[in-house]
Amino acid sequence: MSELRGNAIFGQSGGPTSVINSSAAGVITEALKQKGVIDKVYGAANGIVGILHENFFDMGQEDPEELMLLKTTPSSALGSCRYKLADAEVDDTDYKRILEVFKAYNIRYFFYNGGNDSMDTCNKISKYLQKAGYECRVMGVPKTIDNDLFGTDHCPGFASAAKYIATSIMEVYLDARVYDIGMITFIEIMGRNAGWLTAASALAGYKGYGPDLIYLPEVDFDLEKMTEDVERIYKQTGKVIVAVSEGVKTKEGKFIPELVGEVKVDAFGHKQMGGTASVLANYITQKINCKVRAIELSLLQRCAAHCASKTDVEESFLSGQTAVQAAVRGETDKMVAFKRAAGKEYKCEIVLLPLDQVANTEKRVPAEWITPAGNYVTDDFVKYALPLIAGESSSPKEDGLPRFARLKKVLATK
Amino acid sequence: MSELRGNAIFGQSGGPTSVINSSAAGVITEALKQKGVIDKVYGAANGIVGILHENFFDMGQEDPEELMLLKTTPSSALGSCRYKLADAEVDDTDYKRILEVFKAYNIRYFFYNGGNDSMDTCNKISKYLQKAGYECRVMGVPKTIDNDLFGTDHCPGFASAAKYIATSIMEVYLDARVYDIGMITFIEIMGRNAGWLTAASALAGYKGYGPDLIYLPEVDFDLEKMTEDVERIYKQTGKVIVAVSEGVKTKEGKFIPELVGEVKVDAFGHKQMGGTASVLANYITQKINCKVRAIELSLLQRCAAHCASKTDVEESFLSGQTAVQAAVRGETDKMVAFKRAAGKEYKCEIVLLPLDQVANTEKRVPAEWITPAGNYVTDDFVKYALPLIAGESSSPKEDGLPRFARLKKVLATK
Repeated sequence: MSELRGNAIFGQSGGPTSVINSSAAGVITEALKQKGVIDKVYGAANGIVGILHENFFDMGQEDPEELMLLKTTPSSALGSCRYKLADAEVDDTDYKRILEVFKAYNIRYFFYNGGNDSMDTCNKISKYLQKAGYECRVMGVPKTIDNDLFGTDHCPGFASAAKYIATSIMEVYLDARVYDIGMITFIEIMGRNAGWLTAASALAGYKGYGPDLIYLPEVDFDLEKMTEDVERIYKQTGKVIVAVSEGVKTKEGKFIPELVGEVKVDAFGHKQMGGTASVLANYITQKINCKVRAIELSLLQRCAAHCASKTDVEESFLSGQTAVQAAVRGETDKMVAFKRAAGKEYKCEIVLLPLDQVANTEKRVPAEWITPAGNYVTDDFVKYALPLIAGESSSPKEDGLPRFARLKKVLATK
Repeated sequence: MSELRGNAIFGQSGGPTSVINSSAAGVITEALKQKGVIDKVYGAANGIVGILHENFFDMGQEDPEELMLLKTTPSSALGSCRYKLADAEVDDTDYKRILEVFKAYNIRYFFYNGGNDSMDTCNKISKYLQKAGYECRVMGVPKTIDNDLFGTDHCPGFASAAKYIATSIMEVYLDARVYDIGMITFIEIMGRNAGWLTAASALAGYKGYGPDLIYLPEVDFDLEKMTEDVERIYKQTGKVIVAVSEGVKTKEGKFIPELVGEVKVDAFGHKQMGGTASVLANYITQKINCKVRAIELSLLQRCAAHCASKTDVEESFLSGQTAVQAAVRGETDKMVAFKRAAGKEYKCEIVLLPLDQVANTEKRVPAEWITPAGNYVTDDFVKYALPLIAGESSSPKEDGLPRFARLKKVLATK
């Protein structure tokens, strides 16, 4: 393919993770190296919204050491968004504006880092630019703690959240056992439609400090069956730990908080979850006379860079780097993905998938990895997840606390 | 004082912490070294309850390496209790039983690890044994994330919880800022009567990633004033983080979940007791139209050994060691405490305080360390707390997850 010279822009989108900035570091540092091909590297403030508003930063002005600190800085350093583009056939206003901005800044490389919705955005922009005849290489860089992107073995962000969840549950397991009294603990874990993160609680179980029951959104949730499960284990041991996904639904399609009438809807029309554990704890309190506790891991699980997976951090960085290298090589309209090599030892190679294959397709926990009773996961899940959480990563410390990257964020000019 | 030969027993009491087992390691390993003075070292299952039921373990049977792993194993390895002894004058049943057990096992050294209530237990037993003319050296080893023990500069357990809280809030700070929309976050922190842990959120503020408002139980909580505070900051920045103690009370003495109209009955007909943060979040949602989130740090904050303070771990171990050494030297009826040396550099010496001075006296955050507006803490608190959280401690890893101590727990025989 022909060489394409111009500027690059990078944006972050969707919910942040512990390692989305590691991908950012990969993209930005690699793009800055491409002298003679990529001239300027821009970072969009709040993803596509920053592009629409011409609000972006000149990443060449940043201190290289601070850029590398992004590897261990959680959350989206450039800011994120949940802005949904209309279909170009219905309303092309945003697309025209993006093309205008790209032309004005001679942007020929567009890297977008996000999950399902963001890959949809990326795909739509890519197709529009192609149709408009504007040469621009578009690459998606995957990110989601939910691990639900299609076509990739796993997603950057998942493993660090999984490691934090497994570690925290191991600690809570010990804490919930100190008194010689009965105790039931519900732990609510993120995952609206896919149960990957909730399944990660089984890693704590693999080490001997895990939940007794795991309920994923992949299985219809049956309140009576759960009550039986909990009662049975409680009678045996006096201690029950239940890991439950925020996204579990009854076979009638109702989320648990909907059983008590308390669900909000966000800008995407997604129902805002939360409260699943506390509703269940409240319910069980009436059935079993003992201490019942609800713990919601909430935002903590997606930003706990202090307990990240080194494997995840490095793979995230690599996926950013690879996106740039592939684009410079001539690739476009693709998402970077991971393919696990066969064999006993964990090895992962990077492949490129067409964006339209990835956009808006959700990958859920396979049915064969869920036990027949629908209340735990099989060893196959543990084998899958264990290598992903290998290695320790945390921010360097100053005064005993994390030292995060400090970006100057110098506004770009034409 | 005369040399006293016999056996020793150690118990853990009250809510667990990340480092209570580090004190246990200090007591047990040091007691096992006292050959010719201390013959057997017993560990009571569930504190005083295990003594009453003659349910304890022979710690000499444990693998020394596993005992040292206790330094980085959270929660109470021997089990804890919240058993309150009656006054001996009112009902001496338990005391008679304890004396009987101590005689049967020739226990001459009693080490008890806990907070306010546990020091009361320790004190009562000490006084009873003295009165009964049974020679036994009794030493309290302090422990409480609440940091509210009288007479000691700080308490083992506090700093590790403080470090976890500050670290997590720094991470949540970044997470809560990724979208270009308004957001208010309430973070609920443990501490029924004393606000030390909630004040620790100011350490995150010291690093530039902290809460905007801090509400401690030391100050009467005023819902209207808080609303004004939140509204003012929200207008200025669009982002508000509030750190609030679970123990804040109105001037009428009501906890937040007790406030009128906030105890809901759900669809199951059950009363839903909200936490402090979620009640406040619900309240603010009605006043300010933006995303409002409640995060309860729950058990996580007291068992997060993966993010412990090295200083805390080492001091906890030392306090256990010192208790044994002091008792062997002839000390009794005392609690080990920390005294901070004057001067710029942090240095802490160990002192012994009479148990009856410590028992049941609570130390709260001093009024002069709380800002006049009652919604933050002063730099003096930060200066006090910063050296305590210095240094990193976490469990060694196996498969990317903590490797906790595994005790054999061989039941003791007479």
